[in-house]
Amino acid sequence: MAGMERYQAVIAYDGTDFFGFESQPGRRTVQSEFESALKKVGWQGSRLLAGGRTDAGVHAAGQVVAFDLAWGHGDSALQAALHGRLPKDISVVRLAGAKPNFHPRFHAIKRCYRYQVYISPWRNALADRFTVRIWPFPDVDRMNQAGRHMLGTQDFQAFGTAPRKGSHTRRTVYRAEWVISAANRLEFWMEADAFLYRMVRRTVGTLLQVGRGKKSVLDFKRLLEENPVGDSGPAVPPNGLCLMSIAYPEDCVCAGSAS
Amino acid sequence: MAGMERYQAVIAYDGTDFFGFESQPGRRTVQSEFESALKKVGWQGSRLLAGGRTDAGVHAAGQVVAFDLAWGHGDSALQAALHGRLPKDISVVRLAGAKPNFHPRFHAIKRCYRYQVYISPWRNALADRFTVRIWPFPDVDRMNQAGRHMLGTQDFQAFGTAPRKGSHTRRTVYRAEWVISAANRLEFWMEADAFLYRMVRRTVGTLLQVGRGKKSVLDFKRLLEENPVGDSGPAVPPNGLCLMSIAYPEDCVCAGSAS
Repeated sequence: MAGMERYQAVIAYDGTDFFGFESQPGRRTVQSEFESALKKVGWQGSRLLAGGRTDAGVHAAGQVVAFDLAWGHGDSALQAALHGRLPKDISVVRLAGAKPNFHPRFHAIKRCYRYQVYISPWRNALADRFTVRIWPFPDVDRMNQAGRHMLGTQDFQAFGTAPRKGSHTRRTVYRAEWVISAANRLEFWMEADAFLYRMVRRTVGTLLQVGRGKKSVLDFKRLLEENPVGDSGPAVPPNGLCLMSIAYPEDCVCAGSAS
Repeated sequence: MAGMERYQAVIAYDGTDFFGFESQPGRRTVQSEFESALKKVGWQGSRLLAGGRTDAGVHAAGQVVAFDLAWGHGDSALQAALHGRLPKDISVVRLAGAKPNFHPRFHAIKRCYRYQVYISPWRNALADRFTVRIWPFPDVDRMNQAGRHMLGTQDFQAFGTAPRKGSHTRRTVYRAEWVISAANRLEFWMEADAFLYRMVRRTVGTLLQVGRGKKSVLDFKRLLEENPVGDSGPAVPPNGLCLMSIAYPEDCVCAGSAS
């Protein structure tokens, strides 16, 4: 029999029909569906490790998970076996052997999220799944001026709560930038070492207030400086958000070949 | 009371959960859903007019419909009223008054379709709704060499059947072109005065045979010249296909302002 080995997988999911990533009793979650598929290929673990938790309705193109499995038929065969057992709204982008102690959350050094906005007075049946609609067109230059104040290491308690009670709310933001991706589409890209609960969606909500003239760039800067707990603008809906990638130090990546 | 007026609307729909555009007893179709919404705003007509019929699973970004209605509250208010009564997977892109005799099918001079292909050894939960997956990467240059033989006015009976029994199968193709839209995405754009039943999907299926080396460019040319009834390659699945737009002569377009 094959020996137990740790695997890491980059997975994608359409968050629409999930109550988020993390298992909850009686609810359809990405974690529980992935664990079911793993059990069907012989997994005997108790808990799938993951790089980030995503809320209900949030999508992922680059979530990272890890698990121990005695397999022995090659990485590609395992990826195919999982695809055959996962529901259609979860897929495995890449899969490879990992170092035995690899942990997708603890070893992560950077997370990248994208928030998609569709700009139109009217809803759009083809865009609504992955974008949130606003109207009129906001002032993107002002939103980017404000967004630049997010960069660097700061306490972000105005923009979210710590994922674990009592832990600190300092984070290092590497990118907070709006991009006009098509005539009627905006993308907000945000990278940080780690994120607070709802941080991206509250950042987008607050920056859109700046883009609509409800807050000035100076208001936004002051909000960051004075940093009153939870006092940012409102969180925007989850379906515009996608976890794009999680980065690891080079020595975390195993020699195992990905697809 | 407001007088009866003819309206034209450009509509979009996510075809996933529809049994195609055209009404069928006991089935969820775009036409029946749109007619239900119209009835709720006072429509008393018997049949929605449409520019093209799309098969089950085919999407639309630019289907054109027309109907007569006594409204009198302005085009924008009508568009909003319809959005409030349509299901989430149908939306109204534009709406305007039309000439009284405007017919979206008879007056159409050109239709444009796009077929999206995703190239990967593995399925992708975020792409599967609107693309069809193939692997490996086909030879796009050869597919475009072959596609050029589609251009012009020819009998296309090898590629589809006439929508109405006994009518001819000559069509004029203006564009049949593959575009690499991203590192792992191809789009096939096809424009013609009108299309035969399944013509785009069978053209894509046949061109992919060329792209995989199963047929040569010469085979494709010969298929068009010899034109044996229904002898093209197989139709590819519907979910990659989207009706992008329908064009009309300028004198069909009313002065009525769109959104």
